Amino acid sequence: MAGIKYNIVKEVGVVSENSSGWTKEINLISWNDRAPKYDIRDWAPGHEKMGKGVTLSADELRELKRILNEMDI
Amino acid sequence: MAGIKYNIVKEVGVVSENSSGWTKEINLISWNDRAPKYDIRDWAPGHEKMGKGVTLSADELRELKRILNEMDI
Repeated sequence: MAGIKYNIVKEVGVVSENSSGWTKEINLISWNDRAPKYDIRDWAPGHEKMGKGVTLSADELRELKRILNEMDI
Repeated sequence: MAGIKYNIVKEVGVVSENSSGWTKEINLISWNDRAPKYDIRDWAPGHEKMGKGVTLSADELRELKRILNEMDI
């Protein structure tokens, strides 16, 4: 993902960390100076590299939260 | 993402749909005949194409749910 400009506006939470130090995180990220969006993605230690992920608006995050709260997990 | 074998074991929920019919969904998906994992990703209408996304184990999904429930959203 070289060349992509991003700014982690807020580190919301770490969902998990694997044995090699990669973390799955939810953050609030501004991509290319655009309005920040929530973002769930894997990161290398120190955020040196990023994996694939998904961005969500606040409305989408609320709906995801609603769905998760209805699930039996 | 041509050539990737996947099976949507369970359609859990639609987080959003945009004006061109693409949906952001949470599903339970088996990739390449492996054990199914939760998956949050964008999909073209009829699941004809998929966008980037993130996979989560059941434990990760529970932790994500816990984080979302602590957030003021």
